Amino acid sequence: MRVKNLAELEKILAKKQVLQRNTQPKNQDNTPPPPQLRIIGLDVALRCTGWGIIDTKSEGTVQIPVDCGVIKTDQKAPVSECLRRLAGGVRELIELYKPDVAAIEGGFYCQNVRTAVILGAARGAVIATLAEKAIPTHEYAPRKVKQAICGLGNASKQQVALLVSQMLHIQTDALALDSTDALAMALTHAQLLSAAQGFGVPDPI
Amino acid sequence: MRVKNLAELEKILAKKQVLQRNTQPKNQDNTPPPPQLRIIGLDVALRCTGWGIIDTKSEGTVQIPVDCGVIKTDQKAPVSECLRRLAGGVRELIELYKPDVAAIEGGFYCQNVRTAVILGAARGAVIATLAEKAIPTHEYAPRKVKQAICGLGNASKQQVALLVSQMLHIQTDALALDSTDALAMALTHAQLLSAAQGFGVPDPI
Repeated sequence: MRVKNLAELEKILAKKQVLQRNTQPKNQDNTPPPPQLRIIGLDVALRCTGWGIIDTKSEGTVQIPVDCGVIKTDQKAPVSECLRRLAGGVRELIELYKPDVAAIEGGFYCQNVRTAVILGAARGAVIATLAEKAIPTHEYAPRKVKQAICGLGNASKQQVALLVSQMLHIQTDALALDSTDALAMALTHAQLLSAAQGFGVPDPI
Repeated sequence: MRVKNLAELEKILAKKQVLQRNTQPKNQDNTPPPPQLRIIGLDVALRCTGWGIIDTKSEGTVQIPVDCGVIKTDQKAPVSECLRRLAGGVRELIELYKPDVAAIEGGFYCQNVRTAVILGAARGAVIATLAEKAIPTHEYAPRKVKQAICGLGNASKQQVALLVSQMLHIQTDALALDSTDALAMALTHAQLLSAAQGFGVPDPI
């Protein structure tokens, strides 16, 4: 193609630049980071609540342990003090680790109504704190967690701890069983995420 | 008595002033105000929680209504949203009215464990918020409240509302029954306070 004058040449060059801009790969700095989700698992009880935090990558297939522990109150402390410490402890964990989603125990069965009210109170204090911080909370029945981790619905806490240790490549001997249960809860959520989208993961409560 | 000289006269006058100072009534500005207690009563439920605030004077014998209402959430809202609004609502009430003590329902009986867990969750969210603000919380069984207000353990909500109306000299026709129940809860605490000290008022939970 013969260029007739300078103005025409400039037009052709401008067109080329637009074409290059549309076809070249996106700027590396603007690309979104690989999807990563931080999950907090909570094994809620009035006087000893286990918590465990994991990071997941590649839609839940890769799981990395972050931290775990227990929120404990004295056996003689009044119920209101236990609930205050529980809600305060969960609030601190959220501010420190900034989890994206929470998984807690649900669908359990207890014969004693009084026990159910007290356990419900502990759950209420935790769920209200998570909701206050806009963290979607999913609940899993203990049987479902044991099935997801051990393949057995009636597995013991020790068996769950062993499998958590193998899945996260950590030593769990020195950890409280409540905290390994909480890690198992977070792992269950991660595993169900890695299943087909929209399948397995329950609606947030 | 004959005064011998001016110095003696001054001594006698100074003594009289001291006597007058010791016998005259205390300065009105320095006297402490009559003891007044602000009580918040809460009839806790997941989707409709009644609240009522009263002031009491003279160790609970005089009761003055302050305000009452309900904290409501949509029937279709998820549990976590209900708990968030409930805890947030109670927090707002505390900041606005600054109650000294709280009275909530307790010792109830329900056959369904699932209902007990949900009711327990609502109670947990409320008690944790009250404890966070350092407000001592006392619980009263529904039967005890009805007995204290109506003299009948199985009185209906309408009968409770009628007696609350007479005790506080307010019109309760336009008020929700949940809020008159909450006022009854606060009145029960006030009545038990007016009984002999250390008698009747349960320990804070």
